[in-house]
Amino acid sequence: MNLFKQTTLIGIGLIGSSIARVLKKKRLSKKIFIFSKTQKTINKAKKLKLGDFYTNNLKESVKGSDLIIICTPLSTYKNILIKISKHIMSNAILTDVGSAKLSVVKIFSKYKKNKFHILPAHPIAGTEKSGPESGFVELFNNRWCVITPMGLNDNQSLNKLKKLWIQLGSKVQIMDAKNHDKILAITSHMPHLISYAIVSSSLNVNAREKSQIIKFSAGGFRDFTRIVASDSTMWRDIFLNNKTNVLKIVKEFEKSLNLIKNYIKQNKSKKLQKIFLRTKKIRKLIEKEKQE
Amino acid sequence: MNLFKQTTLIGIGLIGSSIARVLKKKRLSKKIFIFSKTQKTINKAKKLKLGDFYTNNLKESVKGSDLIIICTPLSTYKNILIKISKHIMSNAILTDVGSAKLSVVKIFSKYKKNKFHILPAHPIAGTEKSGPESGFVELFNNRWCVITPMGLNDNQSLNKLKKLWIQLGSKVQIMDAKNHDKILAITSHMPHLISYAIVSSSLNVNAREKSQIIKFSAGGFRDFTRIVASDSTMWRDIFLNNKTNVLKIVKEFEKSLNLIKNYIKQNKSKKLQKIFLRTKKIRKLIEKEKQE
Repeated sequence: MNLFKQTTLIGIGLIGSSIARVLKKKRLSKKIFIFSKTQKTINKAKKLKLGDFYTNNLKESVKGSDLIIICTPLSTYKNILIKISKHIMSNAILTDVGSAKLSVVKIFSKYKKNKFHILPAHPIAGTEKSGPESGFVELFNNRWCVITPMGLNDNQSLNKLKKLWIQLGSKVQIMDAKNHDKILAITSHMPHLISYAIVSSSLNVNAREKSQIIKFSAGGFRDFTRIVASDSTMWRDIFLNNKTNVLKIVKEFEKSLNLIKNYIKQNKSKKLQKIFLRTKKIRKLIEKEKQE
Repeated sequence: MNLFKQTTLIGIGLIGSSIARVLKKKRLSKKIFIFSKTQKTINKAKKLKLGDFYTNNLKESVKGSDLIIICTPLSTYKNILIKISKHIMSNAILTDVGSAKLSVVKIFSKYKKNKFHILPAHPIAGTEKSGPESGFVELFNNRWCVITPMGLNDNQSLNKLKKLWIQLGSKVQIMDAKNHDKILAITSHMPHLISYAIVSSSLNVNAREKSQIIKFSAGGFRDFTRIVASDSTMWRDIFLNNKTNVLKIVKEFEKSLNLIKNYIKQNKSKKLQKIFLRTKKIRKLIEKEKQE
């Protein structure tokens, strides 16, 4: 089922290449155009046969496309928009997959008067791997994709984008960008930031201890190293683009940490366990919602 | 191959019941005696056919056993030792599976003059599940088991316990308790404490936000809720029994967190990425050591 005539994927990493794989498998787009900055990535994408046309020229990549998806780190959006905005077809849909939405809305807002439809989106899916070779068809299966429309009343394109994400395997949720950024700061950005701090804090030890840390990492630590193996540019950009929410929820985290620390210091065994039992309840709710 | 004539498992949760399952499958012990405090757990263990004799009487549980493994939370050790020490056979091996070893050595030290052999141990293996029904034969496969001998020169029993853990599927490492507790504070105890603080900090929101947190938990948060689903008594006891090391490494964590926070506040994009790239290297080392 062709939903689009020509799709441009700007960036062909984990997310972009997973989209390409489903587009191709389900024939959701007649043609797939792939942009990447580097020849190395283009070569990889070519070898994987992810598209029909490959270029490192942004202008060329969007010409004639009725769907353009930005799949690059947030810090690249501004320049991309400057280069592509004049060459996007009327009525085309311009969307993205970025994890912070308010700053995306801000950048996109400058192009509100253009004749293409702007619809920021965020599929909540990923692994710690990056690059075109790490994508796979099932990545979005049963995951939420949040669309944060900018109040431009483009119901037809919204429905089309919804349809696309459902075809990609997702469940779709419409949300405003502000709320999205607040919730994602709690469920994704803060936990990632803390994981970086955990792994980082273990690095200031001597060589013998380091080798023992690696050896005995199965006790919990290695799960955090998996989390921080994700793309570092992407995460740096997320933290900087959702700064206020992230710092606010980190402050809440520090309050909880201080409480737990004090209970440990003072041997307050019952109070400690009370906290731990409370946290366990939220796990049960997640299992009930089948988000496990 | 019978390594032991009669094994007593004091506590039959995730670890105890996994040991029972391998003992039985490989016939490592002629008989298996199971102690549990509660009738409910005894009934579960009976139904799962984990042992040959079941009791809620500690004294009865150890009589005639040449291997006794304590598989209960650290806070129970003192009372258990008071009740069993006089009834343990000469030359029997008394061991445990606790995650903090210095405090275990301290408790065991009072019984140094008894005629049984004391060998504290810690298999670095587990899941977030608890109870006799959650154990499985493969739990210890390819995981490290650390033995922290108390300098009592009992090479024969040490070799026997080593043999047991290798039969249970583990690799064995001899270490002193002090070093064990320092390393495990980094690789296991601190990450768990932080996970409790992360999940705990998300609880102070309104009902609508809570439901959204659960809905979008796949972005990282749910992995932490899995970690804190582990047995709360066990973890409370670990933190209280490895307090000094845990609080010390939490301080290191806080230093790293403050550094990252400041870089975010000040938009220090390059410095942020430098930290993130450093943390990624330790992941590569873990993958190389096949601890992933």
